[in-house]
Amino acid sequence: MLTNIADFTDPIPLARELIRAQSVTPHDAGALDTLQRALEALGFTCRRYRFEEVDNLYARLGSGAPAFCFAGHTDVVPAGDDAAWRKRPFAAEIDGDMLWGRGAADMKGAIAAFVAATARHLEDAGTPRGSIAFLITGDEEGPAVNGTKKLLEAVTADGERFDHCLVGEPTNPSVLGETIKIGRRGSLNGVITVTGRQGHVAYPEKADNPIPPLLDLLSRLKARTLDTGAPHFQPSNLEITSIDVGNEPHNVIPARARAKFNIRFNIAHTGDDLKAWIEREAAAAGLGFEGRIDLDLKVTGEAFLTRTSPFTELLKQAVGEVTGREPAMTTGGGTSDARFIKDYAPVAEFGLVGATMHQVDERVRVGDVELLTRVYQRIIERYFEVFAP
Amino acid sequence: MLTNIADFTDPIPLARELIRAQSVTPHDAGALDTLQRALEALGFTCRRYRFEEVDNLYARLGSGAPAFCFAGHTDVVPAGDDAAWRKRPFAAEIDGDMLWGRGAADMKGAIAAFVAATARHLEDAGTPRGSIAFLITGDEEGPAVNGTKKLLEAVTADGERFDHCLVGEPTNPSVLGETIKIGRRGSLNGVITVTGRQGHVAYPEKADNPIPPLLDLLSRLKARTLDTGAPHFQPSNLEITSIDVGNEPHNVIPARARAKFNIRFNIAHTGDDLKAWIEREAAAAGLGFEGRIDLDLKVTGEAFLTRTSPFTELLKQAVGEVTGREPAMTTGGGTSDARFIKDYAPVAEFGLVGATMHQVDERVRVGDVELLTRVYQRIIERYFEVFAP
Repeated sequence: MLTNIADFTDPIPLARELIRAQSVTPHDAGALDTLQRALEALGFTCRRYRFEEVDNLYARLGSGAPAFCFAGHTDVVPAGDDAAWRKRPFAAEIDGDMLWGRGAADMKGAIAAFVAATARHLEDAGTPRGSIAFLITGDEEGPAVNGTKKLLEAVTADGERFDHCLVGEPTNPSVLGETIKIGRRGSLNGVITVTGRQGHVAYPEKADNPIPPLLDLLSRLKARTLDTGAPHFQPSNLEITSIDVGNEPHNVIPARARAKFNIRFNIAHTGDDLKAWIEREAAAAGLGFEGRIDLDLKVTGEAFLTRTSPFTELLKQAVGEVTGREPAMTTGGGTSDARFIKDYAPVAEFGLVGATMHQVDERVRVGDVELLTRVYQRIIERYFEVFAP
Repeated sequence: MLTNIADFTDPIPLARELIRAQSVTPHDAGALDTLQRALEALGFTCRRYRFEEVDNLYARLGSGAPAFCFAGHTDVVPAGDDAAWRKRPFAAEIDGDMLWGRGAADMKGAIAAFVAATARHLEDAGTPRGSIAFLITGDEEGPAVNGTKKLLEAVTADGERFDHCLVGEPTNPSVLGETIKIGRRGSLNGVITVTGRQGHVAYPEKADNPIPPLLDLLSRLKARTLDTGAPHFQPSNLEITSIDVGNEPHNVIPARARAKFNIRFNIAHTGDDLKAWIEREAAAAGLGFEGRIDLDLKVTGEAFLTRTSPFTELLKQAVGEVTGREPAMTTGGGTSDARFIKDYAPVAEFGLVGATMHQVDERVRVGDVELLTRVYQRIIERYFEVFAP
């Protein structure tokens, strides 16, 4: 058993094996099998949960409280233009101090560090004074429909509970230790479709151009300062991402116009409040317009903040001790699966440097993966010191 | 000779032969040959002017002043969905009092009426006390690049002059005799291209969204009341005809946004004044924006008005005498080749009822073609009474 554990105290071989699995969402390509073998070697009990075409893994070592959970995903975004990469995207090459490959930063390097940190803790401290769980999905980069959300429902239905969770997303913009995320902004996607009546530009009185009411509505939405920020949060922001009419002739008034927008919002708002506001503005923009304004509004995540607590303090302390940096406790950037986990337990995020994530030439410092392993190991140690009865 | 002339006093056979030629721009399909044979039978000297793929015809009877010119086109817009027609679009069927077919209203029926009116005048009055000319193009419905504009330049270079011109466009909305057009609005086509910097919606500070400056510019353009009309003119009007970004993902700020618009303007404006205004607004909308705003502005016709004169009065009188209606002297609707002719001689327009033009089931009343022939004949008679020395 001890020999087996020692096989996993170095995160790099496991990180490379994970990167070599071409697990572009929703394909698993053996990534979860690789992880499961490692966790089973450390004594974890593993269960797989398949939802439609997506495979997911839940693993647990120990059964008592407190239960600490590592969460993340083994799926990756596509390599994009393979020819544009300086190293092959799924070869997991190491060149100098750099480990190259799709998923190196987001977030197979961190998954390997989870495992290595756990292995080191088990070597040093033996059986934990509580439980350690792994909540790993294959659908974070895709629609996130058959991933963490359903996995949490399923493991909860199976009687599983955990007390705190750490997600291994690449939270650091440029240097390991800069940033812990203790919340995320919410996100709302909107599609506005305005339908008028087609006609000839020389006879506007016989047509009903959908573009002016669309511009009016977009101007109303863009004109509002949603807020000037909230503690730990940037100001909320609305971006119009596309407007599409597709009307080729210069002399024709179109029948339909469509626009898309996204709002990233902080805890000054809820998705429902924003939807109600958008609906009011659409009604105002539609006054005097004889056509239709249709809205399709989807809240893909509510804003949340994991308030300062002994848990967030121990994370900050562990990062500071190992990296020598005082991490900022922020909520910026895109959404993550923490938006689902926050309904089950306090959750925070800390991982590698994300500068190259989702780009060609994704890569991380080998030294950072080692440093992150030490951070995670220190977090496990401190976790049981603080929370074990 | 007289027998020959009598063959052309009925406009209907010629109208049907012209409709049967499938002269969809830029194809002539024999339409100009048919017209030339008729005009030569009446004693006209015909010359053809070919510009690139387009054929054009200039014909003249007599050489002295005053010279009256009939102007028009033998090309037609496509039939569109043949199956949607109740009669075959190029069969020139007559059913009851209706002559069906593409070009019946716009404007082969009027061309036939030009010829029949001239034939009747020659039968009644003999050689005209001046000249009658025909200026007929095969590129009015298309780009209008190889049509009337070049034809006017060429015949002028060949020493031709005329004193007044009547264009046979279908000017009447619903009943023959309602409307003479004595000018047209100008038309300006604009394309606005705004180039910013792509990025992720969660990091707007790293991107430069081109949509807000585009919306700002469009709002500025749309906000101005260009005028409240001018004598004989509707108010000028700007229509935004398309906005296109084509950005699929919900979480990406696009790099580029494009909009198209058209202005129909009256004689309160010139194309150059409007261009200068749009450029000023673009500069204002671009303040504080780090990207580029590019404008592509094309004036396809200036506004013009043929002022009240003995010529316009005789037109009004002739229409009134024959139809029993007092025609409105207006400038509404789309552009026509009168925009080119106005630089050479006073020009007005009167033709058939245009209700079905450019649509499926284009058709005119047979009785209207006859009535129009009488109007044109009366115009020729009055023209030489008023202007012949």
